[in-house]
Amino acid sequence: MGIIVDRIHEMKGILKKASVDFYLVPTADFHNSEYVNEYFKVRQFLSGFTGSNGTLVISQEEVGLWTDGRYFVQAEKELSGSGIVLYRMAEEGVPTIEEYLEQHVENGQTVGFDGRVVDAAFGRKLEEVLSDKNVTFVYDKDLADALWTDRPDMPVSDIWVVPEEKCGKTVAQKLEDVRAVMKKEQAAHLLITKLDDIMWLYNIRANDVDCNPVALAYTFISEKEAVVFVQAKALKEEAKVHFEKYGVLVKDYAEIVAYLEQCVLNGKVMCACNDINYLLYKLMGKRGELLDRENPTALLKAIKNEVELENIRKYYLQDSVVLTKFLFWMKKNAGKQPMDEYSAAMKLDHMRSEIEGFLDLSFPTISAYKENAAMMHYSATEDDKKDIEAEGLYLVDSGGQYVGATTDVTRTIALGAVTDDMKKHFSKVASGMLRLADTKFLYGCTGKNVDIIAREPLWECYIDYKCGTGHGIGYILNVHEGPQNIRWRYNPGMKEALLEAGMIVSDEPGVYIEGSHGIRTENILEIVKEEKNGDGQFMGFRHLTFVPIDLDVIDTKYMETSDVRKLNTYHEAVYQKLEPYFEGEELEMLKDATRAV
Amino acid sequence: MGIIVDRIHEMKGILKKASVDFYLVPTADFHNSEYVNEYFKVRQFLSGFTGSNGTLVISQEEVGLWTDGRYFVQAEKELSGSGIVLYRMAEEGVPTIEEYLEQHVENGQTVGFDGRVVDAAFGRKLEEVLSDKNVTFVYDKDLADALWTDRPDMPVSDIWVVPEEKCGKTVAQKLEDVRAVMKKEQAAHLLITKLDDIMWLYNIRANDVDCNPVALAYTFISEKEAVVFVQAKALKEEAKVHFEKYGVLVKDYAEIVAYLEQCVLNGKVMCACNDINYLLYKLMGKRGELLDRENPTALLKAIKNEVELENIRKYYLQDSVVLTKFLFWMKKNAGKQPMDEYSAAMKLDHMRSEIEGFLDLSFPTISAYKENAAMMHYSATEDDKKDIEAEGLYLVDSGGQYVGATTDVTRTIALGAVTDDMKKHFSKVASGMLRLADTKFLYGCTGKNVDIIAREPLWECYIDYKCGTGHGIGYILNVHEGPQNIRWRYNPGMKEALLEAGMIVSDEPGVYIEGSHGIRTENILEIVKEEKNGDGQFMGFRHLTFVPIDLDVIDTKYMETSDVRKLNTYHEAVYQKLEPYFEGEELEMLKDATRAV
Repeated sequence: MGIIVDRIHEMKGILKKASVDFYLVPTADFHNSEYVNEYFKVRQFLSGFTGSNGTLVISQEEVGLWTDGRYFVQAEKELSGSGIVLYRMAEEGVPTIEEYLEQHVENGQTVGFDGRVVDAAFGRKLEEVLSDKNVTFVYDKDLADALWTDRPDMPVSDIWVVPEEKCGKTVAQKLEDVRAVMKKEQAAHLLITKLDDIMWLYNIRANDVDCNPVALAYTFISEKEAVVFVQAKALKEEAKVHFEKYGVLVKDYAEIVAYLEQCVLNGKVMCACNDINYLLYKLMGKRGELLDRENPTALLKAIKNEVELENIRKYYLQDSVVLTKFLFWMKKNAGKQPMDEYSAAMKLDHMRSEIEGFLDLSFPTISAYKENAAMMHYSATEDDKKDIEAEGLYLVDSGGQYVGATTDVTRTIALGAVTDDMKKHFSKVASGMLRLADTKFLYGCTGKNVDIIAREPLWECYIDYKCGTGHGIGYILNVHEGPQNIRWRYNPGMKEALLEAGMIVSDEPGVYIEGSHGIRTENILEIVKEEKNGDGQFMGFRHLTFVPIDLDVIDTKYMETSDVRKLNTYHEAVYQKLEPYFEGEELEMLKDATRAV
Repeated sequence: MGIIVDRIHEMKGILKKASVDFYLVPTADFHNSEYVNEYFKVRQFLSGFTGSNGTLVISQEEVGLWTDGRYFVQAEKELSGSGIVLYRMAEEGVPTIEEYLEQHVENGQTVGFDGRVVDAAFGRKLEEVLSDKNVTFVYDKDLADALWTDRPDMPVSDIWVVPEEKCGKTVAQKLEDVRAVMKKEQAAHLLITKLDDIMWLYNIRANDVDCNPVALAYTFISEKEAVVFVQAKALKEEAKVHFEKYGVLVKDYAEIVAYLEQCVLNGKVMCACNDINYLLYKLMGKRGELLDRENPTALLKAIKNEVELENIRKYYLQDSVVLTKFLFWMKKNAGKQPMDEYSAAMKLDHMRSEIEGFLDLSFPTISAYKENAAMMHYSATEDDKKDIEAEGLYLVDSGGQYVGATTDVTRTIALGAVTDDMKKHFSKVASGMLRLADTKFLYGCTGKNVDIIAREPLWECYIDYKCGTGHGIGYILNVHEGPQNIRWRYNPGMKEALLEAGMIVSDEPGVYIEGSHGIRTENILEIVKEEKNGDGQFMGFRHLTFVPIDLDVIDTKYMETSDVRKLNTYHEAVYQKLEPYFEGEELEMLKDATRAV
């Protein structure tokens, strides 16, 4: 632990020299990406805490680390002996970072952070909370950088161009769509910093963020000009030619600040003021009038075009075939040969990697046995895993990146004897998932209107799952993508996205019983138009996922007649879709797994 | 029509003299009440148009009347020959009033209206729309008043005091609750202009607005003082003593403006800035800082206390008994004796009036036969009504004001042969109503989360009803009461109320087929707490209405097994609740009407 004590000590010295009284180190890259590359793990470097969420607050008096419930045990272990105080987020009596600063920062003091890794929403909240303390904010430097002598390089991978026949829309068409929104909003310029939005817009991909096929990039778009900022090393001939073809000006990633400082502005600058980083927010705010709007790319990319949808349907079927075969293998071999959560995940990942067009996993596979499945974010590792035997429930949540889709799917299966409670929970979850997929709704609904359909069978038994029912999914992009989602909680002032035809959403109710078992059944759905009449445009869903729902854990006494009918209808479709890819013993298993009950 | 032409001519003269270029006459009283007393019908006086919704815009060049789809035919007829131009609201190409003024008002012109009958939300919208035209607003006079020489008196009725044992809370307790909210919001004063809120707060009632048992009143509350403004004539000994008992200062209704102009302000004034009238909004805005908040009374009065709930349950049962007997009578006598929509309504109103504690109807009874029931706001009159025979569907939506409840209920019954489509629609509506009543949900849900439960059986057949599923209901007060409702449409920025235990909501899905039939089945539900566990506080509904759902129009082939089960369970409860009040032939009918199917 000495090394961390030393680092903190040195860091305090740096802060003293820089006259910074409180220094914040969150866990983020410059783009608020879901996964953070090694280069950006400053907080881990300084504290020794390796969890995926945490913020360090350093002052001469105290060093505190804020993290959430998933990491309390781990953080306690990893921080032990470092002198760092653990603040357990959302526990009663524990102040938030804002509250802590409000209490501790004195009049006229200085609060610092690297403005590139703090989103503008949080930065503005700090401004507000400390507004009457005459605080100076220092946010233009990464003060820990000097200390981190063996810091890894910033991630950089080759940018590749998605073949036009896989995109459905050219860069020119997408720029036109984006500029139409800008015109409507009377914006002269648009700054986008969200990586998946930039990838979508320019039909490019890379590998700079784990599981997200993106390159570190910025873009600044005006009526006549589009400038993209990428790392010089990432730019190979193919991408150069591509950008040139569409008249996109390429500048170096590091030039963004200098460029925005001096470029000519002809009017308002549109940007997602909550999402961009605080440094750019302040910079642009000083330069001109900001128009706080969601990135127009967000909605445009969420509504998949027909070419994308065709590829998605095709790859989801391939993905379903592989998962089904894996699940059959698990059911057959559990208890007969040694296996554990980690080896099972490796097997599935390998099977998936053999699908033509496979690029990467879309997120680290969650392979969780028995009580481990009750932890929603559980991740088995080579060193910390559970052996799998021929009993109880096994949950696997996984997905792939393919040149034509990003997949995501969860199934829970019995590997042997299961309890009646498990059957009850499993049957209710299956009912909820199938009910939502079958729901018809009027155009104008948001995810908040329909969430209850999936949740109702569980709420009837006074059981809830503490997460949304569904999220949007990208196309050869992030597995979590907005603006749509399926969630029920009301937050005053929060914007909701309408459910539009061509959007892709997950449908994943679950039951999580601490210390016992976890059940999640997740299909991915495509939103489609149904009948249009005098009452409006009716909408519905179509399954993209075709994987049997384990009948060994179904007990129809816990389902309504209509739920059983939905299950049988779904299994009929699963059989028809998968049958061409199965033969011999596996085909027999498929027949049995999709039989009417 | 000469008289209207003359009035408009004279009005134009008045406007010229007052230098007002555009004068607006909406349809409202000073409190934005749902029903408007004769005294406030200035628009009707000037235009001859008698509909319940309409706004007149008078300029020297043109006089226009804006009304909605319910009244297009009637307005055309009534305006014929008057020279007034009919603007059909929401029709394509028809400008809104704001758009019309934006187009026609010239720089430097004057726009006038009686600021007491225009709510601040609309007034502020006008300010915004005309902001770049240097417009003068004149809003402190009712310019038509001089013209209306035989204008009826302002409504005035005796204020009576609700017996304390029927209130559950004294005025002192309610004032304390209100002041607690004011303190939390850091408001020094509170201005309430909403009549039902004022009645609730002071445990008083009157009869100044049709069907709403309210007195014209204002109240201004500070930390130490509470002032109520009522008409001197309305104040009898009982009310005087009552106000004195709770230290409430009484002033004359007409004094409100003078009082607000000169009273001492010690801090912010809290008020519902969208609801109060424009005159008071501008006045208070000039005097001090306004805190735009919903009236704290809104939520306090929506959550009924146990005393109120007990009375409500008791009166809903009485009301259910009467309606059931009326429906049995209709089924037995239709086609056997002459009757029409109007006479049927009269009969039901009379039956209801015999319930002990009856005060008034809670709204004009909707008694609609066959295709008339497809019009949601249909109202039969003595002169315009349809004869009722032994066939087709009859819809009756009605309710009463009692010293202990405000009721509301709708049933649709077959009076003879009905079509298969009618049975399908009826069965789906019944399923939706029963499903919502049976739903369990987590605390934190709003009406927007649960609306789909009632609508789903219809949406499945691509049918919608163009209104909310439910509204809140007052206690010896307005039959439509906020802040809660059950609606699905998303409006960015709109506030939603959480569904709280003790709230009362209607559950009224329907099918409306123009020119053919209308079906609505409306029960009133009480919101209750169910199990509380680690997942949160679960909530549910309880029926307050116990009236059979006509089995002659049910076809179980259009219902899920679970819906049939819900129907039978409900009918079992109906039988148990009503049985003590029925005997002989009626008891036999009740048995049959609530039999299991």
